[in-house]
Amino acid sequence: MTTMRALVFAGKGQPVLEERPRPQILAPTDAVVKMVKGTICGTDLHILKGDVATCTTGRILGHEGTGVVHSIGASVTMFKPGERVIVSCITSCMSCEFCRKGLASHCIDGGWVLGHTIDGTQVEFVRVPHADGSPHHLMSGASEAAQAMCSDVLPTGFECGVLNGRVKPGSSLAIVGGGPIGLALLSSSLIMITRDANRLKIAANLGATHCIAFDPTAAEEVMALTGGRGVDTVIEAAGVPGTFELCQNLVAVRGTIANLGVHGCKVNLHLEKLWHKNIAITTSLVDTVSTGMLLKLIGSGEIKTDALVTHTFSFAEMLDAYSTFGAAAKHKAIKVIIDF
Amino acid sequence: MTTMRALVFAGKGQPVLEERPRPQILAPTDAVVKMVKGTICGTDLHILKGDVATCTTGRILGHEGTGVVHSIGASVTMFKPGERVIVSCITSCMSCEFCRKGLASHCIDGGWVLGHTIDGTQVEFVRVPHADGSPHHLMSGASEAAQAMCSDVLPTGFECGVLNGRVKPGSSLAIVGGGPIGLALLSSSLIMITRDANRLKIAANLGATHCIAFDPTAAEEVMALTGGRGVDTVIEAAGVPGTFELCQNLVAVRGTIANLGVHGCKVNLHLEKLWHKNIAITTSLVDTVSTGMLLKLIGSGEIKTDALVTHTFSFAEMLDAYSTFGAAAKHKAIKVIIDF
Amino acid sequence: MTTMRALVFAGKGQPVLEERPRPQILAPTDAVVKMVKGTICGTDLHILKGDVATCTTGRILGHEGTGVVHSIGASVTMFKPGERVIVSCITSCMSCEFCRKGLASHCIDGGWVLGHTIDGTQVEFVRVPHADGSPHHLMSGASEAAQAMCSDVLPTGFECGVLNGRVKPGSSLAIVGGGPIGLALLSSSLIMITRDANRLKIAANLGATHCIAFDPTAAEEVMALTGGRGVDTVIEAAGVPGTFELCQNLVAVRGTIANLGVHGCKVNLHLEKLWHKNIAITTSLVDTVSTGMLLKLIGSGEIKTDALVTHTFSFAEMLDAYSTFGAAAKHKAIKVIIDF
Amino acid sequence: MTTMRALVFAGKGQPVLEERPRPQILAPTDAVVKMVKGTICGTDLHILKGDVATCTTGRILGHEGTGVVHSIGASVTMFKPGERVIVSCITSCMSCEFCRKGLASHCIDGGWVLGHTIDGTQVEFVRVPHADGSPHHLMSGASEAAQAMCSDVLPTGFECGVLNGRVKPGSSLAIVGGGPIGLALLSSSLIMITRDANRLKIAANLGATHCIAFDPTAAEEVMALTGGRGVDTVIEAAGVPGTFELCQNLVAVRGTIANLGVHGCKVNLHLEKLWHKNIAITTSLVDTVSTGMLLKLIGSGEIKTDALVTHTFSFAEMLDAYSTFGAAAKHKAIKVIIDF
Repeated sequence: MTTMRALVFAGKGQPVLEERPRPQILAPTDAVVKMVKGTICGTDLHILKGDVATCTTGRILGHEGTGVVHSIGASVTMFKPGERVIVSCITSCMSCEFCRKGLASHCIDGGWVLGHTIDGTQVEFVRVPHADGSPHHLMSGASEAAQAMCSDVLPTGFECGVLNGRVKPGSSLAIVGGGPIGLALLSSSLIMITRDANRLKIAANLGATHCIAFDPTAAEEVMALTGGRGVDTVIEAAGVPGTFELCQNLVAVRGTIANLGVHGCKVNLHLEKLWHKNIAITTSLVDTVSTGMLLKLIGSGEIKTDALVTHTFSFAEMLDAYSTFGAAAKHKAIKVIIDF
Repeated sequence: MTTMRALVFAGKGQPVLEERPRPQILAPTDAVVKMVKGTICGTDLHILKGDVATCTTGRILGHEGTGVVHSIGASVTMFKPGERVIVSCITSCMSCEFCRKGLASHCIDGGWVLGHTIDGTQVEFVRVPHADGSPHHLMSGASEAAQAMCSDVLPTGFECGVLNGRVKPGSSLAIVGGGPIGLALLSSSLIMITRDANRLKIAANLGATHCIAFDPTAAEEVMALTGGRGVDTVIEAAGVPGTFELCQNLVAVRGTIANLGVHGCKVNLHLEKLWHKNIAITTSLVDTVSTGMLLKLIGSGEIKTDALVTHTFSFAEMLDAYSTFGAAAKHKAIKVIIDF
Repeated sequence: MTTMRALVFAGKGQPVLEERPRPQILAPTDAVVKMVKGTICGTDLHILKGDVATCTTGRILGHEGTGVVHSIGASVTMFKPGERVIVSCITSCMSCEFCRKGLASHCIDGGWVLGHTIDGTQVEFVRVPHADGSPHHLMSGASEAAQAMCSDVLPTGFECGVLNGRVKPGSSLAIVGGGPIGLALLSSSLIMITRDANRLKIAANLGATHCIAFDPTAAEEVMALTGGRGVDTVIEAAGVPGTFELCQNLVAVRGTIANLGVHGCKVNLHLEKLWHKNIAITTSLVDTVSTGMLLKLIGSGEIKTDALVTHTFSFAEMLDAYSTFGAAAKHKAIKVIIDF
Repeated sequence: MTTMRALVFAGKGQPVLEERPRPQILAPTDAVVKMVKGTICGTDLHILKGDVATCTTGRILGHEGTGVVHSIGASVTMFKPGERVIVSCITSCMSCEFCRKGLASHCIDGGWVLGHTIDGTQVEFVRVPHADGSPHHLMSGASEAAQAMCSDVLPTGFECGVLNGRVKPGSSLAIVGGGPIGLALLSSSLIMITRDANRLKIAANLGATHCIAFDPTAAEEVMALTGGRGVDTVIEAAGVPGTFELCQNLVAVRGTIANLGVHGCKVNLHLEKLWHKNIAITTSLVDTVSTGMLLKLIGSGEIKTDALVTHTFSFAEMLDAYSTFGAAAKHKAIKVIIDF
């Protein structure tokens, strides 16, 4: 029998290295993964302190890490031997009452089992149950150690902290406990699409990650950027039929088109393509309930709006101000200020 | 009769400067504001094109700008002559069915009226109805022109774009139409509180705006930072009674405590102080539904997790890894990586 | 000096009746209300037990009841002497930071003050501060005692229980504590609009409160029903341009059009009317995540779907089934069942 | 080769009955179901009209119905031959990017395929792909025809109409298009727990489905009622440590405890049991933003609050009113009304 070294919970305060037999495929949905990068969670320390009564002595610890798929059961379809994967701290059967509601944490035949109620990842080979629903393929653009953070700390910080914490743009946020969770780092791609070349330049300075000219290939360019998926939130800030049409071509499944343009005429809504795309379209006039919060952000320097002010006129020059703003592209105008 | 110059909508395509009588207080809830900074909105151009049928000729245009309160009606209590204010594009009576639901945009005696159905702000003096509910006081920390963006563009971008667009951390976002709205700029204060001095340093590097030692004065420091208001989202990431206690002292009215610490014992919940504070407390085990999205952000470089990896061990050194991670403060450890 | 009898908190366990001077208008935003119906809240008993330290002895108790407006301050505009009103337990200045966010419970110059930090309603005359933002006019369709429940118990049950409790259709619900709150009673108007007269009859049997034929006057009829406001949620369940057009005419400010019809062609979207109406339009294909919950409701008899089955065919009669279902109005068919 | 009769889409306007070979298990995740009850969807009529370009001629139609599992592939674990099932209109692989986010409608290897891009259910035997994630077991408490409504119409009405339509208690609702969807029928179990036997009786009259005495077995009784799952929303309406303790024992995974009791002292919060239960606890003082809506419901008779008024006193009898309300159980008092 082939053996391997394993980090075992031998009792309160006793992590030990022991020889253990190499795991086998036990169910057709299993995979065995050869570990490449591991790590230790604060929860492993809790187990060693005896805080987790459901974890008994003899257990191989660990619920995080990356590795190579070594073998798979007959019904595993999403992963093949040789593929690089991230092992997830949560095992999901994808079929029980809880998994069908997106609550894999409470999966009847899974949940947090690795390194807890079954042997875990701090060992050369680990058996991963319900392999189709649990690991993820490694991405190419980042180091393997960096991606090992996706086993537990990053989704925990995001789901249990940011989402449950109802963090919204503009929320203040305090983290009590200096754990290794990169909460501050969650940003996203921000695509600006407009006709005016000057505004595209300014958008790039203001933080747009991609600046795209409004022309017949705009939709294609966005689709290429998003791997064909489209964009979660598309803000319609122009108010003409052509831009509203473009928004319908950009929105992802379950995405939102937030219209804030003022429209002077009806537009075409392509329900024949959108009826099954699970999107929302919103319209609105501002309620100014956010003004106080925004003012505080300007006052504290967190929002900088100076770059939006491009021209200043005296009130006597008001008609010049109108003609400048009315031909904004020509004059590279964004907002014009009138001094009274 | 004292007159003043005004920018008037004289007909399709005709902005003109005319002499007009200076406005008077007409209702006890009015204020008259002497304008200091004005600006022009894209909507003003729509009016000049004849797109807004509800705006008739002869109207003084403008619904944005800052100024000095010149006179007030008998029942105005929030503003005094001489105070610097931002005029809001939306007028709110604060008492009608819509205002009582936060829908000032549809106020029965207000909404968008300035420069639309009553005379607006592109003029020396403007009458502002329902003054208690509409303007805002200027902040000291930013320029007056920068703050003029709070009359319309910034709250419109935020409420009609970001909020209605259901933008969440991790969402991709496209803006169609290069208007002057600083959507990308919405960040917030991020306070890190922990015992470990080294982690406070790392938090600062990772973007925390305030780093506070977990000691008996921590709550006071946070209250001083937030003007006594407390914090909207407090993430409990430690899992001991003392930190959960602190969280209860930090949370703002209508705030959220998101618990992600693993707790080994019950804690005190101060309902005698919190029962009327309109807060939420959440608990959770991660469902890993966000893992795919987070992986993409790591792959594209938008989330950088390398800084979280402080130590690397071979699997043969696993017990050293445990003792290093178990005394993390001493070893300045965050996450330890095991190479198999 | 005119006096009146008042129920006064004279100390722990001591409610007493005392003579007190009749209250006067003190601020231009005050109203004085002559009480007609009062009641006692569990919170009044808490005060008498000494549980509420912020309520000092000598205070006239009570924060509920109905009455007649007796006199008003100079700036009160929403109420006139002689009008019948419900006094609200919460006083809202409608202008402070909290009131402008809909958090009147934490109003800086209000909140819960009546019968707490200022004299309350268990007395002949009560001074109501910030009268424009606090009381409500009585409705004609219900008894005055029934409407007195809107001072506190009903909105408390709804906002603090139902809304904060995230009660959704299909949620199970337990109430711990047998207080006088009519939680179970919250239903709403349910309007069915269809072309088929037979289906309108069935809709009435299934609980529709109003059944309206789909014809050119349908929008007018709905507007008449809703006092011109329109409907909060409009479900588009037909999938043709004409019904989608109707939905746009029915939706209220801040309402939602949920499209579930299958559309074969594009439709007109009247953004020229809707851009400022703060609505949402959603499209979707079912994810079947609710199926398990719905099945349980059928199994327990809470949803009865038998009435939807109008015809049964053997599989040999399948073509008859198609022709019956294809001419559903003629055959009064809803769902046809095929027995294999 | 065994054949069977099938309803086939033979071209625009042509449903025909044809002989077809009986389907076989093609993938280890397949099941073959022998149909028992079928039905016809409006979408089938759309296909026959030629509206659904992705459905080609020769296709066996149908995506609804119930049946008996006839055979299963090697990796199917949730269903066994002989079991009664509901076939779902949506096929979910439970593993792709969309299924892992709860968006089975857009499953990469599933979604709406039955009777659309693969053969459907209007036939004696149907092959159901990804069987673990798609069908549901029949319940015992309702007819099989009634449960066939769970294949499509009921979850479509609920998810695409009620949920996407943001229907909340108190919302008005219009349905345009008289389809067979029982929207009005969605109610839920409502459990009342209190110490006072009289109030339990009144609760039953007001619509509580289960009335449980507050005693040491209350939690067990609720668990028995809910199959051990607990309750989605638990409203704490008493304000003492014992009831708050009970609430923690009743709340389901992902449930909410909405506290509306006034608490005079701290309570125990059992984070050692709740930290991984994904719950929320809210506290609140009413904002009275719902008062206007509730008043309308009282005025229209949709909420009846008369039953809450049990005693009426004149103001001269105010002290009697207090002693009656203070000993509410003895006097069977709910709300007492004072006539001034």
